[in-house]
Amino acid sequence: MSNNTMGLRGISAGNTAICTCGKDGVGLTYRGYDINDLATHSTFEEVAFLLTRGHLPTQQELTAYKNKLYPLRGVPQEVKKALQIIPGSAHPMDVLRTACSVLGCIEPETSHSQQLDISDRLLSFFPSALCYWVQYARNGKEIETTTKQDSLAGHFLELLNGKAPSDEHIKCMDVSLILYAEHEFNASTFTARVISATLPDFYSAVCGAIGALRGPLHGGANEAAMELIEQYATPEQASQGILSKLQNKDKIMGFGHAVYKINDPRNLVIKKWAEKLSHGHPNQHFYPVSEAIEKRMWDEKKLFPNLDFYSANTYHFMGIETDLFTPIFIISRISGWSAHIIEQRSDNRLIRPNAEYTGPTEQAYTDISQR
Amino acid sequence: MSNNTMGLRGISAGNTAICTCGKDGVGLTYRGYDINDLATHSTFEEVAFLLTRGHLPTQQELTAYKNKLYPLRGVPQEVKKALQIIPGSAHPMDVLRTACSVLGCIEPETSHSQQLDISDRLLSFFPSALCYWVQYARNGKEIETTTKQDSLAGHFLELLNGKAPSDEHIKCMDVSLILYAEHEFNASTFTARVISATLPDFYSAVCGAIGALRGPLHGGANEAAMELIEQYATPEQASQGILSKLQNKDKIMGFGHAVYKINDPRNLVIKKWAEKLSHGHPNQHFYPVSEAIEKRMWDEKKLFPNLDFYSANTYHFMGIETDLFTPIFIISRISGWSAHIIEQRSDNRLIRPNAEYTGPTEQAYTDISQR
Repeated sequence: MSNNTMGLRGISAGNTAICTCGKDGVGLTYRGYDINDLATHSTFEEVAFLLTRGHLPTQQELTAYKNKLYPLRGVPQEVKKALQIIPGSAHPMDVLRTACSVLGCIEPETSHSQQLDISDRLLSFFPSALCYWVQYARNGKEIETTTKQDSLAGHFLELLNGKAPSDEHIKCMDVSLILYAEHEFNASTFTARVISATLPDFYSAVCGAIGALRGPLHGGANEAAMELIEQYATPEQASQGILSKLQNKDKIMGFGHAVYKINDPRNLVIKKWAEKLSHGHPNQHFYPVSEAIEKRMWDEKKLFPNLDFYSANTYHFMGIETDLFTPIFIISRISGWSAHIIEQRSDNRLIRPNAEYTGPTEQAYTDISQR
Repeated sequence: MSNNTMGLRGISAGNTAICTCGKDGVGLTYRGYDINDLATHSTFEEVAFLLTRGHLPTQQELTAYKNKLYPLRGVPQEVKKALQIIPGSAHPMDVLRTACSVLGCIEPETSHSQQLDISDRLLSFFPSALCYWVQYARNGKEIETTTKQDSLAGHFLELLNGKAPSDEHIKCMDVSLILYAEHEFNASTFTARVISATLPDFYSAVCGAIGALRGPLHGGANEAAMELIEQYATPEQASQGILSKLQNKDKIMGFGHAVYKINDPRNLVIKKWAEKLSHGHPNQHFYPVSEAIEKRMWDEKKLFPNLDFYSANTYHFMGIETDLFTPIFIISRISGWSAHIIEQRSDNRLIRPNAEYTGPTEQAYTDISQR
């Protein structure tokens, strides 16, 4: 087998009606709707409804959905106890993987008829679980996980920062959650489908997806982008620094994409928000630094920034610690994962590829005394 | 895309030097060694060494390996606390998924240079973690997780039953662990590789693999086989009952295989053990009942029993509750998963297939007030 088919690149692994991304190298649609329309006119709750139910909600449906989601924001006592055990030094992705796993023990899925309820539960649960642990393990405070915030975006920011966020920050977080919600057969979603195809419970598929998202080649890229941007005090330094890195063949995170060939349609949206939120922030120079990196990457490599690059800016400007960037990805992507788990179950077949054997031919067994 | 390529059946997803299974429809080798030789002459620790290190150990290597594994059988205080939270009604696979996730928070992998150590840790850890929870949550006893047993098979049986097992039971469990240790790109191993390919920590890949193994289309089959066997009091009833089920088009678990076409090479080994352990057991009729089911399945469907079918017999005869059968699969398969995670990392490429889009074409966005 050539290296080109390793990684299943270009191989179709199944059908989906949820999303197109990079058809002909461009564009992203959820259930046929263009990502720009959704990010401009919609809310994350509408998008999560769209992904998991297949159509945009009417006002009545949306109200009912949000009324259902609101009480599901709570964290059960058993999960709180488990979160209290995990030290503040832990990786927040490991914390959410654990929180999901414990929830699956406490509120198990006993029938597939519960799948939409569990999908809604996890959507509401993750922001609260993450903030509960952050506040407990890192700030020494045990918080209530209720807020009066209408949106999950606002709820998350209020719990995380301990105060009501600005309308601008809520809107930006909401847009970010929309942009990260779904992306076809990316590695974490594919993981969720491979797991789901053996027909275990819903939580097992989500725990696996979190694990795949945790890797620096997937969800970890926005954190790596932030660490890059922070290295430079001025656009000139950034431009020069990136040139050196490219000459050293260092990997620059947040650029290019496995599926998009011309640009990342999500970048245009989030870049505007990064510029907007930079004004007046103590680190507002991160934005022109980012633009200088973008320009250098285009001039030298014809690589464009992907969603992760300017998302890092927006999260930083909203006061979020860098190692919480990837967990936000979970808070959003659970909507897409859920849609895929439900879709996989609806027309299931075990996902079991072959391997190309490259090992030794038949070996004669020798007793341990003769080795 | 036709249904035939759904599930990636027949598609090569990567290279492996660990295992061949069902080459030309028959046979199973680990690192080139025939499974019959390993099950007859070897021990589970030798096989785990073979899988993770690539060669059979010398006596000196095996002694050093077992000396390393022995103290790793302990369960950290934090994991014990987390296990205490989970009720006895929970699914034991969810419990081990959680135990693995918590261990990943407490003893994190901070560099790939630790991967063999973590693989050894999990090999020693799972039997203790499972038995600690079973005894605590189901039997109301907090146990010490140390025994003087030389083998993991003996250690597991002693912790589970609260008394030293017979040599015959230790040997049978050891053989079973060898037979379940590795099986190429099965769904849980493939899950571990898909997750590993984004380069997260070791535990994330194992948590995902546990989730995939949990499903009734994968590891859950031995439990389903037991539930079938238990339904019949005599071989005649079994033979007639299976005929009725086949006429009703019910699914009979424990027969046939995605990869093997003629027989399951592991079945011959485990069937002998099932017969041996049946003698004198109060439910010794399960063995002739199982043979009657086997005969009927062959006569009617030309389907052969796979490893799961007679494994169910052996576990039952060793006094193990049915819902602990699949967790034993973890205790064994962690050796194969570890080998695959290490192999995937050694020549990594992100595993990211395409999807065939079957959803709506471009939709015009309408404001919620107009829907």
